[in-house]
Amino acid sequence: MKFKCSREKLLNGINIVSKIVPARTTMPILECILVTADDTGIKLMANDTEIGIETSAIEADIEETGTFAFESKIFSEIIRSLPSNEVSLETDEKFLTKIKSGNSEFKIMGFNGTDFPPLPTVEKENKFEIEESKLKNIIKRTIFSVAAESSKIVLTGELLKIKNSSLEAVAIDGYRISYRTCKVGENSNDNEAIVPAKALNELSRILTDKGDGRISVYYTKNHIVFETESLIMVSRLIEGEFLKYEQIFANENTTSIEINTEEFLSAIERASLFSKENKKSPVKFNITPERLIITSNTELGESYDELDVVHEGESLEIAFNPRYLTEALKAVEDDKVQVQFMSNLSPCIIKPIKGENYKYLILPLRIKG
Amino acid sequence: MKFKCSREKLLNGINIVSKIVPARTTMPILECILVTADDTGIKLMANDTEIGIETSAIEADIEETGTFAFESKIFSEIIRSLPSNEVSLETDEKFLTKIKSGNSEFKIMGFNGTDFPPLPTVEKENKFEIEESKLKNIIKRTIFSVAAESSKIVLTGELLKIKNSSLEAVAIDGYRISYRTCKVGENSNDNEAIVPAKALNELSRILTDKGDGRISVYYTKNHIVFETESLIMVSRLIEGEFLKYEQIFANENTTSIEINTEEFLSAIERASLFSKENKKSPVKFNITPERLIITSNTELGESYDELDVVHEGESLEIAFNPRYLTEALKAVEDDKVQVQFMSNLSPCIIKPIKGENYKYLILPLRIKG
Repeated sequence: MKFKCSREKLLNGINIVSKIVPARTTMPILECILVTADDTGIKLMANDTEIGIETSAIEADIEETGTFAFESKIFSEIIRSLPSNEVSLETDEKFLTKIKSGNSEFKIMGFNGTDFPPLPTVEKENKFEIEESKLKNIIKRTIFSVAAESSKIVLTGELLKIKNSSLEAVAIDGYRISYRTCKVGENSNDNEAIVPAKALNELSRILTDKGDGRISVYYTKNHIVFETESLIMVSRLIEGEFLKYEQIFANENTTSIEINTEEFLSAIERASLFSKENKKSPVKFNITPERLIITSNTELGESYDELDVVHEGESLEIAFNPRYLTEALKAVEDDKVQVQFMSNLSPCIIKPIKGENYKYLILPLRIKG
Repeated sequence: MKFKCSREKLLNGINIVSKIVPARTTMPILECILVTADDTGIKLMANDTEIGIETSAIEADIEETGTFAFESKIFSEIIRSLPSNEVSLETDEKFLTKIKSGNSEFKIMGFNGTDFPPLPTVEKENKFEIEESKLKNIIKRTIFSVAAESSKIVLTGELLKIKNSSLEAVAIDGYRISYRTCKVGENSNDNEAIVPAKALNELSRILTDKGDGRISVYYTKNHIVFETESLIMVSRLIEGEFLKYEQIFANENTTSIEINTEEFLSAIERASLFSKENKKSPVKFNITPERLIITSNTELGESYDELDVVHEGESLEIAFNPRYLTEALKAVEDDKVQVQFMSNLSPCIIKPIKGENYKYLILPLRIKG
């Protein structure tokens, strides 16, 4: 393999694939980035056997085609450190590889690229299309409530469901539900898949929130494929049936408030200052027609906040884990939100004043004494 | 104690003193910030028994004087989180303290301020004066080579020596010496002190590098006092005799190069890429009249860089620990530096092309084979 290319373009490719390279594994070849030079250019690939990412062809001056794997960390650092924007890379029959740029030269050992596991072949049957920025946004604003660990394996992933040209993204950890929906391309097939959190986290990191680039998403029973102009990501899916979240959202509320998102968030953050040492300290809401009073009371001290709200329905006292509230409110982009309650044993739902493009449901804590 | 003041001014004071508050100690009162309200305003103080810092009086509307201590972390977080810029604080006879701002109110327990250890009383005998920005600069650019741990206790501090209206700051860890000098106020007393690294690190963090504020430094046998418009810091000194660094710098060089600082640093960083896993991998210099060749050779790979230099004297092969070189070069503000060598067993000295306002001396590694 022998080629010349731009350091910047090669580094862009490395930044796309390198984050999924596992740090330690029983298969050392997986700690590599696969570099393939063919007549279309250079492609980079990483594969942790759950998720694989391949870049589109990077423009290069190919003198000799080939496929070699290089230890990801050292390869990335070498390319990043090169002094000039022109890079030349050349491997010999013993996998010894010279990387040159300006007056610098590195020698490292590569590995046989044919030992590297290829991306799984996926039938491109079911498909939807969406703007990159929209998908990035919807993932970022829901993924935080995927369960880190759970006896219910489906909760360690996020549901992506297509129905009537709408995408619903749903993450549930047993204490809360984060739900968002948006329109997708009209010729989308109805379908659903539970995608591992790691794949969506990596995808949302890579996707750009600028411009109007589109992403095509294909899925089969076992895999999902994300395809943009610059990359293909393939992830295994989580098998099983997702929770029936629709009926949990269907209950009638008896109390509803409209509140300034930023002020609400700040007041909860103040009330949770004493909770850091002891994660379970609840924040209490006392909702009256005039105002919302937020209090906390711990061994370390007490806090009290009063907020103006637009109130409808009954008065109510209810308590929450402040972290669940603050994470949901940070995911809200609106200046004002609506919060609906039913009783102090039932979840609250944070949603837009108008419409239902997001819903954050949070279970309350039981008030003692 | 009862007062009203600006949240921003109180927070500035907290930011000055809170960093030296120890996280865990056998004397819980030391985990507090002392707040004293008297007819001049509010003063904040922290004291870890080695270093103490007190702010100058912060403007406040004092209704009742007093002195109380508050657990540093929670007090800082409360003040930081308050919703309005007007803060009122009130303590009762049982040390229960109310902090109010806007529609928020916190209650925390304070401690009796008279239990807090006062700053040591230091005679203001020996003195020098210098611009804050100059002292900050000189500390930042030498402190990294203080020994983190050493059987020679004097090496865990930095020498500040006043002689003929010049300040010399010297840090030595047994493998290298970082030396800087600058002018101080003309009426300065000749003297020297070994100041613990922690005190100088904290001081350089707090000092501003903008403006022309001046700092007065006083020292006695056991203490040093730094006094600016906004604070007083007192630190214990390290007892003992500092190393005789002057004679180490006195040797004649046989090889000297002039080199672009940035290019030199980048080339050493490239050569040290393979060293991260194995800290002891040396980088080798091959100095000839035409150029400097920098190489490294480890199990992970090899690197080679060629740099143009202005060369005087003998050719030389010599090896170094790359971290010592990169830390010194990052502390240099000049575009070009001079590097002097004597033999491959003697230290090199990095210094300005003209003058001697800094000198970084680094011991070489023995070249094997």
